[in-house]
Amino acid sequence: MTISARRVKLRAALAAADLDAMLVTDLVNVRYLSGFTGSNAALLILADDDTPVLATDGRYVTQAAAQAPDAELVIERACGPHLAARAAGAGIRRLGFESHVVTVDGHTRLQRAAEGVDLVRAPGLVEGLREVKDAGEIAMLRLACEAADAALRELVDGGGLRAGRTEKEVGRELESLMLDHDADGVSFETIVAAGANSAIPHHRPTDAVLAPGDFVKIDFGALVAGYHSDMTRTFVLAPLATWQREIYDLVATAQRAGRDALAPGAGLKDVDAASRQVIADAGYAENFGHGLGHGVGLQIHEAPGISASSVGTLLAGAAVTVEPGVYLPGRGGVRIEDTLVVGSADAPTPELLTRFPKELVVIN
Amino acid sequence: MTISARRVKLRAALAAADLDAMLVTDLVNVRYLSGFTGSNAALLILADDDTPVLATDGRYVTQAAAQAPDAELVIERACGPHLAARAAGAGIRRLGFESHVVTVDGHTRLQRAAEGVDLVRAPGLVEGLREVKDAGEIAMLRLACEAADAALRELVDGGGLRAGRTEKEVGRELESLMLDHDADGVSFETIVAAGANSAIPHHRPTDAVLAPGDFVKIDFGALVAGYHSDMTRTFVLAPLATWQREIYDLVATAQRAGRDALAPGAGLKDVDAASRQVIADAGYAENFGHGLGHGVGLQIHEAPGISASSVGTLLAGAAVTVEPGVYLPGRGGVRIEDTLVVGSADAPTPELLTRFPKELVVIN
Repeated sequence: MTISARRVKLRAALAAADLDAMLVTDLVNVRYLSGFTGSNAALLILADDDTPVLATDGRYVTQAAAQAPDAELVIERACGPHLAARAAGAGIRRLGFESHVVTVDGHTRLQRAAEGVDLVRAPGLVEGLREVKDAGEIAMLRLACEAADAALRELVDGGGLRAGRTEKEVGRELESLMLDHDADGVSFETIVAAGANSAIPHHRPTDAVLAPGDFVKIDFGALVAGYHSDMTRTFVLAPLATWQREIYDLVATAQRAGRDALAPGAGLKDVDAASRQVIADAGYAENFGHGLGHGVGLQIHEAPGISASSVGTLLAGAAVTVEPGVYLPGRGGVRIEDTLVVGSADAPTPELLTRFPKELVVIN
Repeated sequence: MTISARRVKLRAALAAADLDAMLVTDLVNVRYLSGFTGSNAALLILADDDTPVLATDGRYVTQAAAQAPDAELVIERACGPHLAARAAGAGIRRLGFESHVVTVDGHTRLQRAAEGVDLVRAPGLVEGLREVKDAGEIAMLRLACEAADAALRELVDGGGLRAGRTEKEVGRELESLMLDHDADGVSFETIVAAGANSAIPHHRPTDAVLAPGDFVKIDFGALVAGYHSDMTRTFVLAPLATWQREIYDLVATAQRAGRDALAPGAGLKDVDAASRQVIADAGYAENFGHGLGHGVGLQIHEAPGISASSVGTLLAGAAVTVEPGVYLPGRGGVRIEDTLVVGSADAPTPELLTRFPKELVVIN
């Protein structure tokens, strides 16, 4: 079973870190390791025991039993301290906790509950495991990306991108179409940025009206079973200007270079550089002010980051975005973004999940 | 100016706690005290200086200057540590920090940055100020509640609540109508719970089909300028059964009792008891398993909580919900919820913000 395989990996990591157990309090990590999606929970995983202990409160008795059938269930509102006390009672000496998530006050409560236990910082331990997606996760990411692809196709084919509409109207229609295509929700607030607004990397949709000659940059995603898709496409409302064609082609070339660099084992900052260099060589280094990409999964932004300051290498099976952009303040900007799954040493070609075409579409 | 008045209150609270300054890192609190809404920020407020220091990163230069014109702006990605170091440089001895928000690892970074400074836990200091709404906040809450009222009115008058539709369809239409009525978004995921599902206090909309004889419980809200509305109404699709009329009337009476108890200075747990007793006297104590209400504002759930275990009293100008319910597992449930602003000693009647009628509507 997939979820239990995740816990096997965590338990190996615990043993390697000389931890007797791990107290997981981040709710996304609880979900990853147990299947439970409630809003109040903690999970205790022992290095030498296959059965995790899931604590949640009375609202979730039925849901927890259904979603996490192989966990021992404890109903208790103060989930973290309760499991810390239980660890103490079980003779745990070194208990890992998520020091990047637990608050200072929360840590005090854990210390009081787990007297005699050594609370050991274990930041990012579960997030590290989440970086490589298993088959079930990739299947959900595919569905999420398919819903987004289908929604954008329907928006464009139905004439939804046209002069006279507002950014907000386009965004609302696209979000509604994702739900029509079986998304559970949206990954994040849809970005629709027209004209000069397209030069703002993260622009919230306004009542600005789409006009002839505009770039229209759309960054959006669908949520399916907790998994997020992430895609950006940039269109032009006719007439197309020469400068628009030039920067579109430049970003498309840079994006291609970034995808081509997505080999397992590649240095993260080398992947960023492969794409960034194309833009720098054309003289637009100053106009690409953000990282090349990021991991996606149960969160819209997760490990690994792909930027000039990233440390580490790309792992086989990681799901990441590749999203260079060139932004010309006051004029407009282009970003092209895909979500892909990094291949393996045997089959190094990444799987493209966001399949909507990337050729420039000029809408008449 | 409203926002600067909030800082005056905070500075008085700092002086009372013998703190030289406060480092605010919770983003909602940063917004409350500065007006800035970006996703990476921290705010340093000195007890004896009227100008706050706002740190954010390069994405937000323009936005921060526009939203927080009276703050000194610092562009720096590591906002919290940077401001902690600045406090150290300014000779601050006792620096308050949000120990209920700052993580264990974040605290270590602050300590390293602010050598020689005494980092003092100040959990909930800003949240305490936020409990009493100022005129600008109440105006935004009114707009949010009006958008929700208008959307529900249009849903009902337009025949949107009828047998044959799914919970999801009803929820999507209601959310879309709130946007039509100038909401910036929704307060939280809309609850539409039909038939036996209405007995689940917090039910996510499914593909379940509304049927004759169903209770349809709808809990939803609109977001306007960061402020959340919160309202629940329960309808019946004809025919109406006797047991439905009985529990509807019971919950309506209990809700009325809760609203009548909303006097400034009233004990929070007494407000809860005033409503709960009505339900208990009718023999349904076991069927009302949650608190009576909660504060609403920049967050959908904020101080004060109103439940049997609440400590403290209701403050004049607090915005709170009153939302008793009776849930009969396998049959159905009723919840009726309003958002109100607690009155003052001179004018103790609360202001009802959610004005959609509460008489039972049976839809034919």
